[in-house]
Amino acid sequence: MTARVMDGTSLARRIREEVAAGVAALTETVGATPGLATVLIGADPASEVYVRNKRRACVAAGMRDLHRQLPAEASQAQVADLIDELAEADEVSGILVQLPAPAHLDAEEIVARIPATKDVDGLTTTNAGLLAQGRPGLRPCTPSGVIRLLDEHSVALEGAQAVVVGRSVLVGKPMAQLLLERNATVTVCHSRTRDLAETCRNADVLVVAAGVAGIIGGDAIRPGATVIDVGIHRGEHGLRGDVDYDKAVEVAGLITPVPGGVGPMTIAMLLVNTLAAARARHGLGQP
Amino acid sequence: MTARVMDGTSLARRIREEVAAGVAALTETVGATPGLATVLIGADPASEVYVRNKRRACVAAGMRDLHRQLPAEASQAQVADLIDELAEADEVSGILVQLPAPAHLDAEEIVARIPATKDVDGLTTTNAGLLAQGRPGLRPCTPSGVIRLLDEHSVALEGAQAVVVGRSVLVGKPMAQLLLERNATVTVCHSRTRDLAETCRNADVLVVAAGVAGIIGGDAIRPGATVIDVGIHRGEHGLRGDVDYDKAVEVAGLITPVPGGVGPMTIAMLLVNTLAAARARHGLGQP
Repeated sequence: MTARVMDGTSLARRIREEVAAGVAALTETVGATPGLATVLIGADPASEVYVRNKRRACVAAGMRDLHRQLPAEASQAQVADLIDELAEADEVSGILVQLPAPAHLDAEEIVARIPATKDVDGLTTTNAGLLAQGRPGLRPCTPSGVIRLLDEHSVALEGAQAVVVGRSVLVGKPMAQLLLERNATVTVCHSRTRDLAETCRNADVLVVAAGVAGIIGGDAIRPGATVIDVGIHRGEHGLRGDVDYDKAVEVAGLITPVPGGVGPMTIAMLLVNTLAAARARHGLGQP
Repeated sequence: MTARVMDGTSLARRIREEVAAGVAALTETVGATPGLATVLIGADPASEVYVRNKRRACVAAGMRDLHRQLPAEASQAQVADLIDELAEADEVSGILVQLPAPAHLDAEEIVARIPATKDVDGLTTTNAGLLAQGRPGLRPCTPSGVIRLLDEHSVALEGAQAVVVGRSVLVGKPMAQLLLERNATVTVCHSRTRDLAETCRNADVLVVAAGVAGIIGGDAIRPGATVIDVGIHRGEHGLRGDVDYDKAVEVAGLITPVPGGVGPMTIAMLLVNTLAAARARHGLGQP
């Protein structure tokens, strides 16, 4: 049996169209267009690409692109002043600081200055706490995107055995919380897990965000399971994920490709968060 | 084989003595004695007992008992004013609002007013976020007490299979985070978990905080496992926990009794947190 492939590109496109409609409606209703302030410090080529893609998606959804750039040698105080300015500014619905920041800066301190209500990356301590406590807040984009992919394919989560590989603050940990919120029985694995393949074989839903190319082979997958691959690595033969796709596709029931699976969902959910933040600012629902 | 019993009463006594020594040292060094402000709203008999025990433990450790009482009919604004006053007060190292609050009050809003640095119950959104992000902060007392019990008995956590039954904000969720921080592979079970006994049988370390008397029987325990029972229920034959102790003690390797297991650890860790908060206030370490 070969797994059905979950197409993140087409779902992300649909979500972006929905966001565009929401942006138009909000502009119509309250006369204010949501705006996203991306902040890039320095000129790291990879970061420049990421920021450019986010800005394009933002413009394509009809939002205001409020990008700000600082030189690589910007001081902590300069960055702080910029964040404070954006925090105050009415036209800024969301603030996204592209990480990593240059090494001389304290990135944690920078993120901590972003007001939780404009933290469209879901990275602040307040939003992490709101998620842990099961209260409304802005959630990190990648794990939210995974939930949307699962929902789109009607994957049952209530009572399901879900296994998350990886425990990063950005993906693994919030992913586990979101699956728990949906009433899955959730196991978190990581580099110290004793028998990773055996634990993964228990999973009805396996989410891999280990950051290690090909760490999950076909032997780690229960036949018919849903496999979500968050990893992305540039190799000799193009992009690949944390999952050995060729083996996994023969065992799984549903699987995300790399590229074209989780990747496109992350930017789509950034737009969803920015619209939600803008709406909440006008008293229209919680993020 | 019969399990070894983990004596929480004697460990808690030892911790309280250590805290008392720390309180004396801090008073000597900086000339300020840590103070705990317990806040009781109304006269719920059970809450009165809990608060009395906390105040006694606080006094026995040489701390200042800064208890405050409000009538059951206190308004939200009155409670808020009191919290703000305690938040400002120099002699108050820790604030503990005894919950549940009377039904007409918004308990979440009350807890949210407590500054994270004085939140010795580890209940605020900020402290939940700090825990989720693996950063220093005040941790909830009961799960911290469980970790101390495990350490006291040299239970290996790194790479161990840990299963937590229950996902409350106060116990289950922070417990899972603390076990993850110690490099266990962690599974969280709850009322929607499909085969609870089967999942629990995978556990090297089983922490039960389900709030359902006797929900864990001998069949849910791997032979030789460590079993921690956070439950406490008043029944016909005295107190009992979430674990069927008589059956479990024949299968487990280590087990906590009810009473005398986790219970006494909670107050001990409250004192640990209050001392840590006082020390942090004087620049002596992080909580």
